[in-house]
Amino acid sequence: MDLLIHVDQSSGVSLHRQIYDSIRGAILSGRLRSGEKLPSTRALSKSLGIARATVTMSFDSLLSEGYIEASVGAGTFVSRALPEELMRPASPTVDPATLEASTPKVKARSRGRKRKDASDPGAQDPDKIQGYRLSWYATALRSRQWLSFSADEPEVQLSFGRPAMAEFPMRVWNQLLLHHARKRNLGLLDSPANAAGFMPLREQLASYLSRVRAVACQPEQVIVVNGSQQGIDLVARVLIDRGDDICIEEPGYIGAQKSFEAMGANVLPIRVDKQGISVDALKEHERAKPGFSPQLVYVTPSHQSPTGVVLSVPRRLELISWARRVGAYIVEDDYDSEYRYKGRPIPALAGLDHAGTVIYIGTLSKVLFPSLRLGYLVVPLDLAEVFTRAKWLTDRHSPLLEQQVLADFIRLGHLERHIRKMRNLYEQKRKLVIESLKKHFSTAATVLGDAAGINVVVRIASDKDDAEIVLQAKAAGIGISSTGHCYLGEAPRGEFQINYAHLNEDAIEQCIERLARIALS
Amino acid sequence: MDLLIHVDQSSGVSLHRQIYDSIRGAILSGRLRSGEKLPSTRALSKSLGIARATVTMSFDSLLSEGYIEASVGAGTFVSRALPEELMRPASPTVDPATLEASTPKVKARSRGRKRKDASDPGAQDPDKIQGYRLSWYATALRSRQWLSFSADEPEVQLSFGRPAMAEFPMRVWNQLLLHHARKRNLGLLDSPANAAGFMPLREQLASYLSRVRAVACQPEQVIVVNGSQQGIDLVARVLIDRGDDICIEEPGYIGAQKSFEAMGANVLPIRVDKQGISVDALKEHERAKPGFSPQLVYVTPSHQSPTGVVLSVPRRLELISWARRVGAYIVEDDYDSEYRYKGRPIPALAGLDHAGTVIYIGTLSKVLFPSLRLGYLVVPLDLAEVFTRAKWLTDRHSPLLEQQVLADFIRLGHLERHIRKMRNLYEQKRKLVIESLKKHFSTAATVLGDAAGINVVVRIASDKDDAEIVLQAKAAGIGISSTGHCYLGEAPRGEFQINYAHLNEDAIEQCIERLARIALS
Repeated sequence: MDLLIHVDQSSGVSLHRQIYDSIRGAILSGRLRSGEKLPSTRALSKSLGIARATVTMSFDSLLSEGYIEASVGAGTFVSRALPEELMRPASPTVDPATLEASTPKVKARSRGRKRKDASDPGAQDPDKIQGYRLSWYATALRSRQWLSFSADEPEVQLSFGRPAMAEFPMRVWNQLLLHHARKRNLGLLDSPANAAGFMPLREQLASYLSRVRAVACQPEQVIVVNGSQQGIDLVARVLIDRGDDICIEEPGYIGAQKSFEAMGANVLPIRVDKQGISVDALKEHERAKPGFSPQLVYVTPSHQSPTGVVLSVPRRLELISWARRVGAYIVEDDYDSEYRYKGRPIPALAGLDHAGTVIYIGTLSKVLFPSLRLGYLVVPLDLAEVFTRAKWLTDRHSPLLEQQVLADFIRLGHLERHIRKMRNLYEQKRKLVIESLKKHFSTAATVLGDAAGINVVVRIASDKDDAEIVLQAKAAGIGISSTGHCYLGEAPRGEFQINYAHLNEDAIEQCIERLARIALS
Repeated sequence: MDLLIHVDQSSGVSLHRQIYDSIRGAILSGRLRSGEKLPSTRALSKSLGIARATVTMSFDSLLSEGYIEASVGAGTFVSRALPEELMRPASPTVDPATLEASTPKVKARSRGRKRKDASDPGAQDPDKIQGYRLSWYATALRSRQWLSFSADEPEVQLSFGRPAMAEFPMRVWNQLLLHHARKRNLGLLDSPANAAGFMPLREQLASYLSRVRAVACQPEQVIVVNGSQQGIDLVARVLIDRGDDICIEEPGYIGAQKSFEAMGANVLPIRVDKQGISVDALKEHERAKPGFSPQLVYVTPSHQSPTGVVLSVPRRLELISWARRVGAYIVEDDYDSEYRYKGRPIPALAGLDHAGTVIYIGTLSKVLFPSLRLGYLVVPLDLAEVFTRAKWLTDRHSPLLEQQVLADFIRLGHLERHIRKMRNLYEQKRKLVIESLKKHFSTAATVLGDAAGINVVVRIASDKDDAEIVLQAKAAGIGISSTGHCYLGEAPRGEFQINYAHLNEDAIEQCIERLARIALS
């Protein structure tokens, strides 16, 4: 037997561990075979010049872990219970022949789903991975076109809605953070009953919503989630089965669209006009398909994503009335409601409805900062229990510390103070964006939507196509996205999103000038 | 027209807001009807004794939000576009007659699912909520028996696996926390490409796993999630379709069982013996059902949950071999692997497999603290993309700040130092638990499992049934759970979990004495 044990007295690794590693390695690599006899501890101790107790310690570990077995009077052997086929090199590059042999049989199951985008590397063989079958959900995720935002950080990023971080009351926030971090309460939320969140935060959110969004709700209806995307995902899981009709705005928010599609929903795009989602378009579906009863209508009424249109009050009431009649939930994503620069914020749909028709999604990503990952749902009381269960299964609960900090931040008035301050600041920035567009684009740029939110959508008349503008902007240090990905149907040319909240005045002016040079040259 | 506007000069609410609120309230409550004429701003200003500009400001808000409309030369009217049926009292207690009228038609869909637990309040009418239909998932969540842990915090809590928080290097952690909090990077992870987590943390985790768990993986295989429950949930979504066979340990971890069940899996309990999950039992299923090919086998090999048995190395290799042959993924929940008090930790299944058979779930909840909500998956490289997409749809990414802190905490050696320290501490506590059980229960208590983890399962011979013991323990200030809920099949009597890690020596001794008095009296 050729048992090569290298022991290095100066390696810093204990000797018994070195012996253990050598023998275990020899077994797993196949150099020591199942049933093969090992030298005695005495012989090994002698040959290595190491105390016998040390060798015995290594053997004990190997015995207790089942790599070797002892037979009284006969000696020690490599365990006979180790399957032969596993005793091969532990190399990360697998021998193709081995791989062939170990590839499981392909499971047959018809899917009837076609790949939309053959150039997407993730789209290859969506039905299986090395012969393993994935779920319908995973197959849908793999086979459909995925988001293609770049992970590179350009000099100026217009693609994502980021708040002006420099204005955030960081000192106050961090004081609260440290205060709660110092007295960490480790067990506070580990019971499933608490999956919906830290009760003092739920109370603060309920009271905030009633003050600011005219939503009268009980803390028991508030479910704390990790940002609005988790809110959307939970709604999708609780409401959607494969094949269900659901309605979204056209153009609409891509994160919601992808979630609903991945759940297998039959996603119907509903056109948006200057008053927001068209209830007439919903009624057209009803006429075309008697008994039409979608599971939900997903809307962004306070500042339609991406167009920026505010859903008018008459339209709101009409939508609620229609949804109630056909038996559809309204999912109100109020992601951007805090910033309205003309008049008071319009009350949320959830504040106009009193019959459990609206599921409300709120987020702190736009008001505080996105990497915080905190948002909330307000659900009809009779749905609170099932959402709490779903949240527990999803991730037990959202992180406690930030919930504690946020509860204090709201309670002490910092949130509303911050929003008031930012509303003025963003209004000025918005004006500057519009002035700069006028100055550098003249009539070649039209701003869509109402005076709200922290981004504008601009329609640009250019000879270049959208992809070319995006590419040249990227080369000029500007990250910009067209609204093309927001449409399920045919997208218009030349619509771009400008997220301006995090940019200073110089950056706004300069990047719009650069964009004009690109688009109009 | 009877337009009652109460204005209170001393209320602190601005006068134009008070007027706005009064008129809006009158419109929404139906006191002002669609098309009804409003008094002129001049008349209102006069009757209220308020500057006309203030009244005009209120009217402008109402106009811009669509509640009222102006007709040149004719005056101002309540908007005609408001649906009549919504103009009713905005009271949270809905008139039953109104509710009747607004209840949507019940959607017909056969489910063929029976309620298991009629006493569960959430289980009533699982198929619909006020006539709205929920998804199959939500219906399953509502109709099945849910977890019944109490949210009350007893004097001594044995039910949850909580670490010894007093020993946590809180000062170091909070220093790192404040360091990163001060220089918040707001945009770092908002691109979908980063949904899998903060790359420096993924690198640290990959290197940690290779040092400590013998798992050789690339950072690209590591997906940062919000604790192991989210890991389980993502695995369930990526692998399970309704009706799929999946295998779990019997007894097993309830969080995984509930997740798989809610996804509609056909959950097969596989018995656990002294070496861990029985591969023979898996083979019995194969014999009974030729072509048997479950989507996954979920195991807790490092310290079986709840029994505490460590999966032996031969059994590990046998399991991998079997799974590969039948085409099942192994989902390895390594929740408790850091603490093994006899010999070195056994390498993870993910370290023994080199053909993409194992999906590894790790958590920091037991090592750091549970309310942190951080864990990670290590997935075969060809699954990394689909898991990243699923994570993005679920909640975009895990909170950034804690990822930054944890990356530093590992890089600076704090994690491994802390684990070494805790291993000694927990070993002593475990010994004390066993001694105390012997002292107070004598032969009436048997400890199951191996010397690992931060809890023990004890089998108690008592004349009382489990529920009675739990109830009397609660009255004595002790929260304790039987393992009954860990079994899908018939559960044995008198098995209880003792999570001891967070208790000091006196508390351990005292509560076991109290338990003995309860169980043996």
